[in-house]
Amino acid sequence: MKALFPGSFDPVTLGHLDILERAARLCDTLTVAVLGNPSKQPLFTAVERAAFLTESLRHLPNVRVDIFSGLLADYALRENIDVIIRGVRSERDYQVEEQRALVNRGLTGGVDTLLMVSDTKYRHISSSAVREILSANGSERFFTIFSEMVPAVVAEKLKEK
Amino acid sequence: MKALFPGSFDPVTLGHLDILERAARLCDTLTVAVLGNPSKQPLFTAVERAAFLTESLRHLPNVRVDIFSGLLADYALRENIDVIIRGVRSERDYQVEEQRALVNRGLTGGVDTLLMVSDTKYRHISSSAVREILSANGSERFFTIFSEMVPAVVAEKLKEK
Amino acid sequence: MKALFPGSFDPVTLGHLDILERAARLCDTLTVAVLGNPSKQPLFTAVERAAFLTESLRHLPNVRVDIFSGLLADYALRENIDVIIRGVRSERDYQVEEQRALVNRGLTGGVDTLLMVSDTKYRHISSSAVREILSANGSERFFTIFSEMVPAVVAEKLKEK
Amino acid sequence: MKALFPGSFDPVTLGHLDILERAARLCDTLTVAVLGNPSKQPLFTAVERAAFLTESLRHLPNVRVDIFSGLLADYALRENIDVIIRGVRSERDYQVEEQRALVNRGLTGGVDTLLMVSDTKYRHISSSAVREILSANGSERFFTIFSEMVPAVVAEKLKEK
Amino acid sequence: MKALFPGSFDPVTLGHLDILERAARLCDTLTVAVLGNPSKQPLFTAVERAAFLTESLRHLPNVRVDIFSGLLADYALRENIDVIIRGVRSERDYQVEEQRALVNRGLTGGVDTLLMVSDTKYRHISSSAVREILSANGSERFFTIFSEMVPAVVAEKLKEK
Amino acid sequence: MKALFPGSFDPVTLGHLDILERAARLCDTLTVAVLGNPSKQPLFTAVERAAFLTESLRHLPNVRVDIFSGLLADYALRENIDVIIRGVRSERDYQVEEQRALVNRGLTGGVDTLLMVSDTKYRHISSSAVREILSANGSERFFTIFSEMVPAVVAEKLKEK
Repeated sequence: MKALFPGSFDPVTLGHLDILERAARLCDTLTVAVLGNPSKQPLFTAVERAAFLTESLRHLPNVRVDIFSGLLADYALRENIDVIIRGVRSERDYQVEEQRALVNRGLTGGVDTLLMVSDTKYRHISSSAVREILSANGSERFFTIFSEMVPAVVAEKLKEK
Repeated sequence: MKALFPGSFDPVTLGHLDILERAARLCDTLTVAVLGNPSKQPLFTAVERAAFLTESLRHLPNVRVDIFSGLLADYALRENIDVIIRGVRSERDYQVEEQRALVNRGLTGGVDTLLMVSDTKYRHISSSAVREILSANGSERFFTIFSEMVPAVVAEKLKEK
Repeated sequence: MKALFPGSFDPVTLGHLDILERAARLCDTLTVAVLGNPSKQPLFTAVERAAFLTESLRHLPNVRVDIFSGLLADYALRENIDVIIRGVRSERDYQVEEQRALVNRGLTGGVDTLLMVSDTKYRHISSSAVREILSANGSERFFTIFSEMVPAVVAEKLKEK
Repeated sequence: MKALFPGSFDPVTLGHLDILERAARLCDTLTVAVLGNPSKQPLFTAVERAAFLTESLRHLPNVRVDIFSGLLADYALRENIDVIIRGVRSERDYQVEEQRALVNRGLTGGVDTLLMVSDTKYRHISSSAVREILSANGSERFFTIFSEMVPAVVAEKLKEK
Repeated sequence: MKALFPGSFDPVTLGHLDILERAARLCDTLTVAVLGNPSKQPLFTAVERAAFLTESLRHLPNVRVDIFSGLLADYALRENIDVIIRGVRSERDYQVEEQRALVNRGLTGGVDTLLMVSDTKYRHISSSAVREILSANGSERFFTIFSEMVPAVVAEKLKEK
Repeated sequence: MKALFPGSFDPVTLGHLDILERAARLCDTLTVAVLGNPSKQPLFTAVERAAFLTESLRHLPNVRVDIFSGLLADYALRENIDVIIRGVRSERDYQVEEQRALVNRGLTGGVDTLLMVSDTKYRHISSSAVREILSANGSERFFTIFSEMVPAVVAEKLKEK
């Protein structure tokens, strides 16, 4: 099974890494595809985001990190992907992912999406929570906080911001 | 029953048309009211959006298309509407429509909203999905994709964009 | 528009009456159809439940009360109904009604269901809440409680139980 | 990937078959495991239910049908399964499956569940809808109805009931 | 603040204990009230269930355990309670608790309910999950499994069943 | 119990006031904390929003109004708060508040959030509904409408806008 895990990863969190490790065990190859052109101004560039992922996933030999732009469906067809995988932390996430799964199945002519329930330990961690905390300037505890939410390499970079 | 179906219709989709046809069968007259001043910059002007609707609904003699601005509740009272109709594709849509129905009932002093469940065939089609696909520039398959989501007259215009 | 409002009405509540009055204003005729053979043992017989409804709705000339058994879809076709109407108090209700609407549309070959959001005043009132309160024997306040949940004629009968 | 798709399948529906076919394409082997001892009295015995599945899935060489009793987690460990797969038709289904996925991951010490969104065409079809329609005795249209919900072999058997 | 935490506790789980400890820190006194007459046949009697709670909560001096029957609202009024507290593990739980909170506020003439989000660690643990696992006879791993879901005193008793 | 009720209050609504009054009855002291730096451009400045609250809550001796910026968790720790309280009007609100409760519990090292279900009377009233109505220029009925949604002092100010 040749799988694709797309996302913005702005930035990658410990929750992402947990799902990616679990997904990698089930696939022959897993491509982690970083969305190059998100609608909102990202915190990190696509190249930075991909570098954080590469650094954090290097212990998984069947995982590779890529950057894509344009339609996910086109990328999936071009890369000859068998299935898309996404993590779901809550019913709210599910509502979004259900729509996406149906749209992408239509646009690709049949590539399905498999959803994986996040470990409850990471349920409250999201890239947007990280960005929101960062935007509330001035906490001295930021580094400690981020250390529990993102990989060390990202926490270091967030410290600089 | 004199009914009102308000919306942004940016652009009208095959899902809208399906609901509008089903609603028209139940009403004496159905006014499709295009929101003239949406908060976000629309893809098409209100006049263009209304024209697409008029073109697509001309086989329904009891339907007329109008453009409104300001408060929907004021428009409904001014037009002497008996009931508002809206389509719902998912629980997520329902969450939004429930709030709107309660607000509009309050603001109009009693005009109710009737919700109609979308055909599952159109469940994953939305104006925002169309706009999102369009914003991911460069697919050669755009025209084919849009042909399954919007009426032909809209697909032609999207091709130009 | 010839409408059908099906239900168990075991017993009819003030919430039901509110929705039925609002629905009746929108229809040419409204048939309130009492399910004769619910899966669970009902509190009141179908004849009693229909009598409570008849008593409570006699001020609405275009409403009639009936009892049906078997498949709702068959009843709707036999009675030449244009549309089914149901009330929704919450997303939880919506989840159930969406499935029913899709099933009944399939079984009837096209009869749609219109959903109407309950007045928030009646949001917490349900037949099952009435039955649950009744089953907790022994409150002296039962009559007062039920007077705020069901029509007087039903509250009287509940007092006897 | 050695996958397990557990369920009651009472009876198997066209929705089940669609998900099972899509899942089978992604797995090396797929075991469809029929729950032998459901809490409610089933419509068909476990052996009948398994036979319907075997008949309906014989064109898929990497699928086998089995009956299990006891804890799903024990069965999954005994059979050396890599992953559990389940279909989800709605947020309501998701709510149930999320809990099950977390429980089974805990009980197995790490076997994950992958959720697959049902085709919208089968969204309103469920075993319980079939059973509910059957329990409303007397429709002459039953056979036609069931032909659109279950495989022919099951529709024939339902006709006899 | 004199608080009441009602429930069936059949049996008490580690998730219950976590919420009760967190709630106890916020209240002057916390009464844990065991529902004496649940609609379904319980696994343990009300006296047993209360004993498990007493045993497990003895380190909390401001907590007392009681058994009640009849209407929760009547009990709350009789005991002069300021507020009801309940735990919520998911949106599904919330749907149920919202209705209950509204009903109990009505029945008591103003006693509110405060909802507390469960620790994600206990999100998948529920009394019904324990009962379901128990009903799937025959796992040798039962004791290990239950040790992670319920207090030791309950796990011992479950072993005997 | 020293409680904190944070929010944007842009502007304070009758729904906010109802929840705040109910919460104040349960706490020793209640701090209403106005978010000074919301991500979107607010309708009123933090000072104005706090003044509306102070004016509207002056009959509650144990309530004080404050403005905070930065991380809510830091503010809660600095102020030595026991618990955070928030109102919930719907499952949609719950989805958001559950995530926030988990994040804030993590960031504070244990400060819990208690959720209180809004009175159904105020279920459809929100600050964003007020802002949306205001942005649809030109209704002569604005003042009447706002009088049912916000305190008189706010309705006066909205009239000027």
